Amino acid sequence: MGFMQMLEAAWARNDSLVCVGLDPEPQRFPAALRDDPDAVFRFCAAIVDATADLVCAFKPQIAHFAARGAEEALQRLIAHIHAQHPGVPVILDAKRGDIGSTAAYYAEEAFDRYGADAVTLNPYLGRDAVQPFLDRADKGAVLLCRTSNPGARDLQDLVVRDAAGGERRLYQHVAATVAREWNANGNCLLVVGATYPEELADVRRIVGDMPLLVPGVGAQGGDVGAVVRNGRSAAGTGLLISSSRAILYASAGADYAEAARDAALALRDAINRCR
Amino acid sequence: MGFMQMLEAAWARNDSLVCVGLDPEPQRFPAALRDDPDAVFRFCAAIVDATADLVCAFKPQIAHFAARGAEEALQRLIAHIHAQHPGVPVILDAKRGDIGSTAAYYAEEAFDRYGADAVTLNPYLGRDAVQPFLDRADKGAVLLCRTSNPGARDLQDLVVRDAAGGERRLYQHVAATVAREWNANGNCLLVVGATYPEELADVRRIVGDMPLLVPGVGAQGGDVGAVVRNGRSAAGTGLLISSSRAILYASAGADYAEAARDAALALRDAINRCR
Repeated sequence: MGFMQMLEAAWARNDSLVCVGLDPEPQRFPAALRDDPDAVFRFCAAIVDATADLVCAFKPQIAHFAARGAEEALQRLIAHIHAQHPGVPVILDAKRGDIGSTAAYYAEEAFDRYGADAVTLNPYLGRDAVQPFLDRADKGAVLLCRTSNPGARDLQDLVVRDAAGGERRLYQHVAATVAREWNANGNCLLVVGATYPEELADVRRIVGDMPLLVPGVGAQGGDVGAVVRNGRSAAGTGLLISSSRAILYASAGADYAEAARDAALALRDAINRCR
Repeated sequence: MGFMQMLEAAWARNDSLVCVGLDPEPQRFPAALRDDPDAVFRFCAAIVDATADLVCAFKPQIAHFAARGAEEALQRLIAHIHAQHPGVPVILDAKRGDIGSTAAYYAEEAFDRYGADAVTLNPYLGRDAVQPFLDRADKGAVLLCRTSNPGARDLQDLVVRDAAGGERRLYQHVAATVAREWNANGNCLLVVGATYPEELADVRRIVGDMPLLVPGVGAQGGDVGAVVRNGRSAAGTGLLISSSRAILYASAGADYAEAARDAALALRDAINRCR
């Protein structure tokens, strides 16, 4: 089953638009895990097991593993999700993108080595830099469009002139280009931050029903109601609303997994009240 | 010694603007290495040892290691360069960039885990996504500007309107922004592909003496003379002209390291004839 089918099924089965981001920060782990040499895997697996029936996807962020040489823990974690919670897609948050031959190696890393179902990509290098990802029709290609950070304004909000002489912002150009030209296999998604709800509405108008990955609720302050109203598709889905720290570190005590479940449930229900 | 001082010293000491890209592809290794479990490290270390006195930098490309789980070989390779060839800077070609807290983990990965002296970065997410790299004043931050691939046109060549109402292409805006705003520590460089010599001249006019990393000579077809004429700084340096495949795979036989040396020497001399 391809990524898009997995996602559709997970939206329906779990009645959830929540994506839990797996960003392990050992200094925030509960005391019981501090001296555990396998703490990164155990912490993340406990979060996964506590929330898998409440989410539409998991999103491990690769830098949190790579900074400490924990690639093997990341591989095991993704294998654990596939084995224990089949049907919940895994989006590897890696923001890759490079010229042709190297992009193929990055695709191999994400899909073959790690077994991810989708990966986040940076569009700055253009189409050929993401083509090896687009070509994997059963995998999701999640292109950065309008990110949730303040610096997103530096490039993404610039006014650009298109070939026909019309003007629009760079993120709108990216949305239109991905929707019209890069999505031949129907496997593209876009990243649009929750902190800019008007831009989210803009992107939704441009891309039709394409799924949008929306980080920035919770710790970054994005408003859930505005995200759902402005970002949902005609079917009332079309969103993966991603939360990491607010779920992972809901409790610093031994009850961290239960607290994560409570936080994921509260987010799911808050979202569903606005759908 | 910081990255910029290392680079200046290596330009002078080796009289060379050549940067050798380390992009290991085991299927192209000589037969003698094919069954060696440590082939990736051995191949790259042999290339390094054969060319270290002819280059201004080495540039390992991380996807070529990550696709096959060879992070440990990459760590050992960079440590080998530092130990055996002190003073030759190592640029980790990783094209990173992510929002604030995650960018800090990527900086930790590049500089602390791998011990790189510089890293390539993607500017699409804006300044805060590269700030943790800019803050490491002793390390180089190599921002993508105008890349060497055909798809570079998709975004980088778009005409954008700046705050003052002037018009320029996106890559020119990136060059100007990095030079004026992101380079407070004097540790920024830009990537400009050899395949677009006019754009290289443009960028040189915008950024003064900032060093430019120029991939795309050799296998990608960029012209050395045009690169040097259009890209050199006032001092006749200011360039890291990167070649990977044309040097690494100059011979498929047991003489691959000697052949790599010959190819690096020929490139260095071809460049120096144009300076």
